[in-house]
Amino acid sequence: MAGFDEATALHPVGDGTFDTFDAELDGSWSIGGKLNGGYLLALLGRAACVAVGSEGHPHPVAASAHFLHAPDPGPARVEVAVLRAGRTLGQVRASLHAGGRHCVEAVVSVGALDGGTWWDGVPPVELPAIESCPRLPVQGPGFEVPLMAVVAEHLDPAVMGWAVGRPSGAGELRGWAAHAEGREPDPVSLLMFADALPPATFDLGSAGWVPTLELTCHVRAVPAPGPVVVRQRVRHVSGGRVDEECDVWDSTGRLVATGHQLAGVRIPEGQAPATRR
Amino acid sequence: MAGFDEATALHPVGDGTFDTFDAELDGSWSIGGKLNGGYLLALLGRAACVAVGSEGHPHPVAASAHFLHAPDPGPARVEVAVLRAGRTLGQVRASLHAGGRHCVEAVVSVGALDGGTWWDGVPPVELPAIESCPRLPVQGPGFEVPLMAVVAEHLDPAVMGWAVGRPSGAGELRGWAAHAEGREPDPVSLLMFADALPPATFDLGSAGWVPTLELTCHVRAVPAPGPVVVRQRVRHVSGGRVDEECDVWDSTGRLVATGHQLAGVRIPEGQAPATRR
Repeated sequence: MAGFDEATALHPVGDGTFDTFDAELDGSWSIGGKLNGGYLLALLGRAACVAVGSEGHPHPVAASAHFLHAPDPGPARVEVAVLRAGRTLGQVRASLHAGGRHCVEAVVSVGALDGGTWWDGVPPVELPAIESCPRLPVQGPGFEVPLMAVVAEHLDPAVMGWAVGRPSGAGELRGWAAHAEGREPDPVSLLMFADALPPATFDLGSAGWVPTLELTCHVRAVPAPGPVVVRQRVRHVSGGRVDEECDVWDSTGRLVATGHQLAGVRIPEGQAPATRR
Repeated sequence: MAGFDEATALHPVGDGTFDTFDAELDGSWSIGGKLNGGYLLALLGRAACVAVGSEGHPHPVAASAHFLHAPDPGPARVEVAVLRAGRTLGQVRASLHAGGRHCVEAVVSVGALDGGTWWDGVPPVELPAIESCPRLPVQGPGFEVPLMAVVAEHLDPAVMGWAVGRPSGAGELRGWAAHAEGREPDPVSLLMFADALPPATFDLGSAGWVPTLELTCHVRAVPAPGPVVVRQRVRHVSGGRVDEECDVWDSTGRLVATGHQLAGVRIPEGQAPATRR
């Protein structure tokens, strides 16, 4: 089992101008055979930071990705173009290619993360102690979720009704998450944590996986050591697409990242959402 | 005063392969001398739809933009690259160049908007009748807002305390919005409406303008005719940046678009947020 840093390692190709990298997409970061969108975003976020260089721009601040094709685990190529390297922010175009296809197109703004919180409209969710929250198994609902071996996710028992056929109807999952290898979270891995929970549509009774179409993550602070708290909420399901919002707090209760995504969702004909209980 | 369609008109350059367009950035869509980010996103969203062609992909579905430089009103160049033209979605890279600078980099997923609502976690806000909501004037707090001449914004009087030095501290603005020219809203103009309200930080007592760093808009449905209802909320202010969420409903109360943005915000030393009243 490779760690997160190995799974997002970048090897410069050619003359070392840091515009093209080889990467190895690690199947550990997958769900039912599909690589996790947050993992791919983290890979591109890391490439953007490397491309701009560390001085004044050490972290991803805002990263937006559109998903064109689902890449298979294995070799991939990352291409980056620094569009601007400003004083406080730089912007980078980053794309992922694998199996002869353009798989992900992203734009990443990189910069420094510092300064305290002035106003917080997103207070942290309250969770039972991690020991009281069951860890999600690698065996998912009808398919394997290798991601659950590399990301330790301990969900609040109150949102686990879907696992026994009794979704709450609230459209919200929440729990603790950490690198299973013991590595501490950092701004690059927050891009992954912001898409690491199961789809919150499970809590509405929709059992299918939801392929991410677009994912944007805003990183707000460097996380403190320790597991992060993640809340994934459905906002709206219509026209075969779902809009989900994900907030991530560090172990001190500080909001450190927010993800917003639009994903595909297949609702069987005639199925109604779970009734709120 | 040019209408929205003229202000977002695209003129193919060269051999008509629809990968490069001339545009004229219209100063009517500006705030304190800066063009509105949603207007620029709408221009790029329109270019993406034109580039892919209309069959099966008539509308912007998800559009993400990172803002590199604020362009001045006047001539601009839009470059697009169709990355994929799939059966249900196409993805387009779109960039805006003006004054010799790369000003905006965007990725746009285009496709069809159809199908009903299955689950809605974002019920429409309730507003007083439009006649009871004052229209925002072109004269803003300390500077001109020409945007208010082309977008008729009638805000709920309950959120207008900031205009008389009494912000509520809730961090939320809401109101009716419409094209002043009488044109009906459509999916492209929703990209603009999702960034058209004043910054919700006004309601926290922060009077400065907030330059958009990143703006992603998910368009969820073709809007019905009539004014849209827009709610702009602050989620979190820290490290000199603010995360705002904007929901847009059509005149039937259907959620038609959601915008998420990260913007810069300057808080004077020692200033505390307005106390919630």
